[in-house]
Amino acid sequence: MDTERVNTGVPGLDEIMNGGIPRGQTVLISGTAGTGKTILSCQYLYMGVTKYKEPSVYLSFEESPESIKKNALNFGMDFAPLEKSGIFSFVKYDPYHVDDISTHLESRIREVGAKRVVIDSISALSFYMREGENFRRMLFTLSSILNKLGCTSFLVSEVLPETTALSRSGVSEFVADTAIVLYYRRVDSAFSRAIQVWKMRGSSHSERLHPYKITKTGIVVYPKEEAFIDVKHGSTKF
Amino acid sequence: MDTERVNTGVPGLDEIMNGGIPRGQTVLISGTAGTGKTILSCQYLYMGVTKYKEPSVYLSFEESPESIKKNALNFGMDFAPLEKSGIFSFVKYDPYHVDDISTHLESRIREVGAKRVVIDSISALSFYMREGENFRRMLFTLSSILNKLGCTSFLVSEVLPETTALSRSGVSEFVADTAIVLYYRRVDSAFSRAIQVWKMRGSSHSERLHPYKITKTGIVVYPKEEAFIDVKHGSTKF
Amino acid sequence: MDTERVNTGVPGLDEIMNGGIPRGQTVLISGTAGTGKTILSCQYLYMGVTKYKEPSVYLSFEESPESIKKNALNFGMDFAPLEKSGIFSFVKYDPYHVDDISTHLESRIREVGAKRVVIDSISALSFYMREGENFRRMLFTLSSILNKLGCTSFLVSEVLPETTALSRSGVSEFVADTAIVLYYRRVDSAFSRAIQVWKMRGSSHSERLHPYKITKTGIVVYPKEEAFIDVKHGSTKF
Amino acid sequence: MDTERVNTGVPGLDEIMNGGIPRGQTVLISGTAGTGKTILSCQYLYMGVTKYKEPSVYLSFEESPESIKKNALNFGMDFAPLEKSGIFSFVKYDPYHVDDISTHLESRIREVGAKRVVIDSISALSFYMREGENFRRMLFTLSSILNKLGCTSFLVSEVLPETTALSRSGVSEFVADTAIVLYYRRVDSAFSRAIQVWKMRGSSHSERLHPYKITKTGIVVYPKEEAFIDVKHGSTKF
Amino acid sequence: MDTERVNTGVPGLDEIMNGGIPRGQTVLISGTAGTGKTILSCQYLYMGVTKYKEPSVYLSFEESPESIKKNALNFGMDFAPLEKSGIFSFVKYDPYHVDDISTHLESRIREVGAKRVVIDSISALSFYMREGENFRRMLFTLSSILNKLGCTSFLVSEVLPETTALSRSGVSEFVADTAIVLYYRRVDSAFSRAIQVWKMRGSSHSERLHPYKITKTGIVVYPKEEAFIDVKHGSTKF
Amino acid sequence: MDTERVNTGVPGLDEIMNGGIPRGQTVLISGTAGTGKTILSCQYLYMGVTKYKEPSVYLSFEESPESIKKNALNFGMDFAPLEKSGIFSFVKYDPYHVDDISTHLESRIREVGAKRVVIDSISALSFYMREGENFRRMLFTLSSILNKLGCTSFLVSEVLPETTALSRSGVSEFVADTAIVLYYRRVDSAFSRAIQVWKMRGSSHSERLHPYKITKTGIVVYPKEEAFIDVKHGSTKF
Repeated sequence: MDTERVNTGVPGLDEIMNGGIPRGQTVLISGTAGTGKTILSCQYLYMGVTKYKEPSVYLSFEESPESIKKNALNFGMDFAPLEKSGIFSFVKYDPYHVDDISTHLESRIREVGAKRVVIDSISALSFYMREGENFRRMLFTLSSILNKLGCTSFLVSEVLPETTALSRSGVSEFVADTAIVLYYRRVDSAFSRAIQVWKMRGSSHSERLHPYKITKTGIVVYPKEEAFIDVKHGSTKF
Repeated sequence: MDTERVNTGVPGLDEIMNGGIPRGQTVLISGTAGTGKTILSCQYLYMGVTKYKEPSVYLSFEESPESIKKNALNFGMDFAPLEKSGIFSFVKYDPYHVDDISTHLESRIREVGAKRVVIDSISALSFYMREGENFRRMLFTLSSILNKLGCTSFLVSEVLPETTALSRSGVSEFVADTAIVLYYRRVDSAFSRAIQVWKMRGSSHSERLHPYKITKTGIVVYPKEEAFIDVKHGSTKF
Repeated sequence: MDTERVNTGVPGLDEIMNGGIPRGQTVLISGTAGTGKTILSCQYLYMGVTKYKEPSVYLSFEESPESIKKNALNFGMDFAPLEKSGIFSFVKYDPYHVDDISTHLESRIREVGAKRVVIDSISALSFYMREGENFRRMLFTLSSILNKLGCTSFLVSEVLPETTALSRSGVSEFVADTAIVLYYRRVDSAFSRAIQVWKMRGSSHSERLHPYKITKTGIVVYPKEEAFIDVKHGSTKF
Repeated sequence: MDTERVNTGVPGLDEIMNGGIPRGQTVLISGTAGTGKTILSCQYLYMGVTKYKEPSVYLSFEESPESIKKNALNFGMDFAPLEKSGIFSFVKYDPYHVDDISTHLESRIREVGAKRVVIDSISALSFYMREGENFRRMLFTLSSILNKLGCTSFLVSEVLPETTALSRSGVSEFVADTAIVLYYRRVDSAFSRAIQVWKMRGSSHSERLHPYKITKTGIVVYPKEEAFIDVKHGSTKF
Repeated sequence: MDTERVNTGVPGLDEIMNGGIPRGQTVLISGTAGTGKTILSCQYLYMGVTKYKEPSVYLSFEESPESIKKNALNFGMDFAPLEKSGIFSFVKYDPYHVDDISTHLESRIREVGAKRVVIDSISALSFYMREGENFRRMLFTLSSILNKLGCTSFLVSEVLPETTALSRSGVSEFVADTAIVLYYRRVDSAFSRAIQVWKMRGSSHSERLHPYKITKTGIVVYPKEEAFIDVKHGSTKF
Repeated sequence: MDTERVNTGVPGLDEIMNGGIPRGQTVLISGTAGTGKTILSCQYLYMGVTKYKEPSVYLSFEESPESIKKNALNFGMDFAPLEKSGIFSFVKYDPYHVDDISTHLESRIREVGAKRVVIDSISALSFYMREGENFRRMLFTLSSILNKLGCTSFLVSEVLPETTALSRSGVSEFVADTAIVLYYRRVDSAFSRAIQVWKMRGSSHSERLHPYKITKTGIVVYPKEEAFIDVKHGSTKF
């Protein structure tokens, strides 16, 4: 029995994920500053609502919905009408009051009937919860709520350059079902971008590095090409 | 006098362990995110119950039994009927209440008459017990209970990339009788998987790196082949 | 719909930024000691006031306005008459009283009707706010005030040599919309300077390293030339 | 005047130690997990009692005497009859009550009339005494008691891979009179074992790396052969 | 309008500084143990008083004036008569009572009418002020007092080998107007010394490494020669 | 005026120190475990008393005088008769009561009329004084007392392998007038020893690495030979 796949709507991404994300999984989106994690997240939700008819929720801890929407508009994604029609919702949550975050998120998901969720970023969350074990527990709680409600979700993870872990905490990669890494690295005299599906629970996937670009309509992945960047001191590890 | 061996049931693994795990030992299963530690653990218990008729217990600190069972199903392992017939048991234990964990685990092992146990993961345990000496002591306590009850056990250990220790704490590898390391590393432009028996108390074993794959029925080890991955900055050390 | 661009007035810089800074963005200016971050900031504001008729505010946490003005004079920029005519303002703020800093900054911006702001340096700010999450929050607060008031702003960031992050805190690069890095690095037996646009939200930009010089009239960027410095152990990362 | 030498009874080891351990010294046995430190310790005491007629004491902080004895049996060393005849004693001591450890150890040594002592492991001891200066002091106290009682002793020290110190604390190598390091390192595609006498107070010794094997009767050192392993990132340092 | 230059009096040094130190600046003198920071400082003040008729103050936090004077005598600099004639003053200040240090220093400078000041060392100061933000603030306070009083000053900074920052705190290089680094590095089988002007506010300077020697009359810099030492793991950075 | 030199009495050492130690200086003796720091110290004092007629004091913080004397005997140095005749004294001082250490040391020095002092080790001292600034202050106090009493002294410093500082604290090398480093490093398949005079206040010295051996009569330095060991990751730095 094969698991149902959720199409991301990001050109080329589903192909390197063996058809899409297994429904109900949480996906870690990991990358340094400037790799396009927020654009990718916007595309996932925008295409979800407009093309696949799946209501969606975008949970932000720091950046304002206005700022995210303005940025998305640059790539041709207009979230305003989707919000008005009640099939999309931006939530800005204060990371200082994390205790009731899961209740809050759950009620918003039910309200919208969301099938897709983005949490941007779990790194912010880990910053405000300084004790590692509290963060680890919170992450498992969020993850199991999202799973219980049948949502297929993105957890956005900031990493610093030359960190070998996939998240600031070194925890999220073990909690997430699937992990995708975005690279931005110098090759000779210019910079290149590459994407990699790091792990996918219960599914095979491309084990290669693929180039991607940030175009006028967002991220485009090239599933048939291979990226030759040196990631030895980056995030490719054993 | 040779020690009795416990067959893991994982294709190829027993061969690189000189016939299997010496009965009663604790085995550290160490690997980064995405190396298949949980699949390997499921196979060990599923084959234990179905093929070798040894009742088993799976102790999880964070991931829900539902999630683990669902993932196992993807590889053709259906734990539900085994649970119903009382020869297999999933235990989810809150790592915040670790004081009585050993009592709890012991009673569940006796209930099922378990011969095989998986603790997934001791890394989670170490996270919630922030004082190193408490964790070290807990680990020795668990280990001696498992030994006293005659169980042959897996301790699952998360490691971050480029860590040279076999566990987050740098302690577990000294407590475990046997240690197995799973690698996931880039070779030229693709990723390769390799497995290594790091140590085995009171027994010889293969001292080479062997390739393994995650197939539709779980992990398969190739005992006659050798893996040529560079583990210099990984976990091969003096 | 294309975003309006703010011209920096720094020769060559606008060309590698695809025409200038998208109006309303915050720009991280990152570099080690001696790379000319303060000169660049002075040029941005001086040209803003004199050439583009945009009133400006320079917020300093440590260095005295006298010292900054004296240094600017060396490069032919005389801020004294601009201050007198009320279209430019230096603010020195004690980083020990950060609680009301945003109120203070906001009122000064309104007073002057500022369109351009420099905060020099956010590293000093992070020093005095030792708890990471407070600094992160402060940075988001400042950033959203600047955005709300329609200011296009520079955040000056000190980095130590061979640090791979773009800021001391490893936070600012995620908060800023745009990031520019200044390098000072040995090539064979002499030192070279190079500038790079690291990221620009919602816009393409040069992805190359360009040489720059500190001349008698300030920083000059060479947009048509390429700098070949080894930044592997510097701040070029994945 | 030459110091009397204590024969270890480990094949080949005395030859690379210029005839054995100077009587009364403490010897640091340093190695990562899986290098055979406990086997070596068992051999030292077993041969001491059975061949050289020197009563012995084995002090363990964590592993149970049962477990150590069972493991020793795998190598043909049966400690049970030695215990019964009162010339050998296993002591298990709770590392949480370290205050009276020296009194306790002293009385046991006198009881047995011990000439050889193993403390397994001082790393465990350092774990439970988190303040570095307390551990340092305890180590000197133990060392001077052992010296006063005329015992020639092994201090077992766990090290993590790629650590350059000979002990977790970086202290024990300065306290011990003699230090022996056990290596386990990859050479091309297989793993090799090597032993080295690092220092010996008041005596010359082999300054080379020698291969050793873990055979069915325990560790065997090859004093006439040389091991060519790369220990650059291991424990060869200035 | 060009800034007036202060001649250091150190042979060759003024030439690589484009004529000397811009009057009123603070200069960071950074180097490991044995690079001659104190000799350089003594030369700066001794030549200041005897050749350029500028009264001077030497502020020491730890080393006694007797010890510094004795050492200076070895290089032919006799401070005793200068002290007696009231145009030079040694100040030894207890770093435990730093609160009133600036008042103290100011009154001594006024007393002597000092134009040149050496603070040896700011590393000692940072040691006794363990909270980074207090040290940063103190440094800015000292710096602005020295500037206000029209003194051209040296701040002596100890660095450990292979540190890439120019000071222990990683702060001083941002506070100082000018930074000079002294290197002591192995080239093949012998050691070489080299000096570099790292940054100079508002002025161009040599961007090369120049050899220097510690002669019988103190430090001599060779402005026309170039030093070819490998400072990759030293202090050459981006 | 040339400073008087103190002969160490160690064969070859005076030659690479331009004739010996400038009288009244403190000399840092830095090396890893097994480099012979204590033997060198014993030679310095033993030769001082027997050959140069300078009474001496050996201050130990941890190792017992009995143990040091026994070890010295192995190298033919018998301190017992020297102690009896009152021209040599061993002091064992409890590092937990460091407050009155300087008074204690001073009175002992006066008693014996000591001209040479060894403090073994300052690393132990730093261990028991956990706050860096207290240790730094204590070191300066000891150093100025020794200087005031006209003693020429050794400060023994333990370093861990691959540490680039000359002491655990990274402080002592700045306090000492002179620094000598002992190396023990692998070259191809064997280990080599080398000695280096790192710095000497107010004096020139050999800037090369020289081989040394630990013979039956103690350390012998070869001033005319050169040691070619790789100290890149050791203590050769800028």
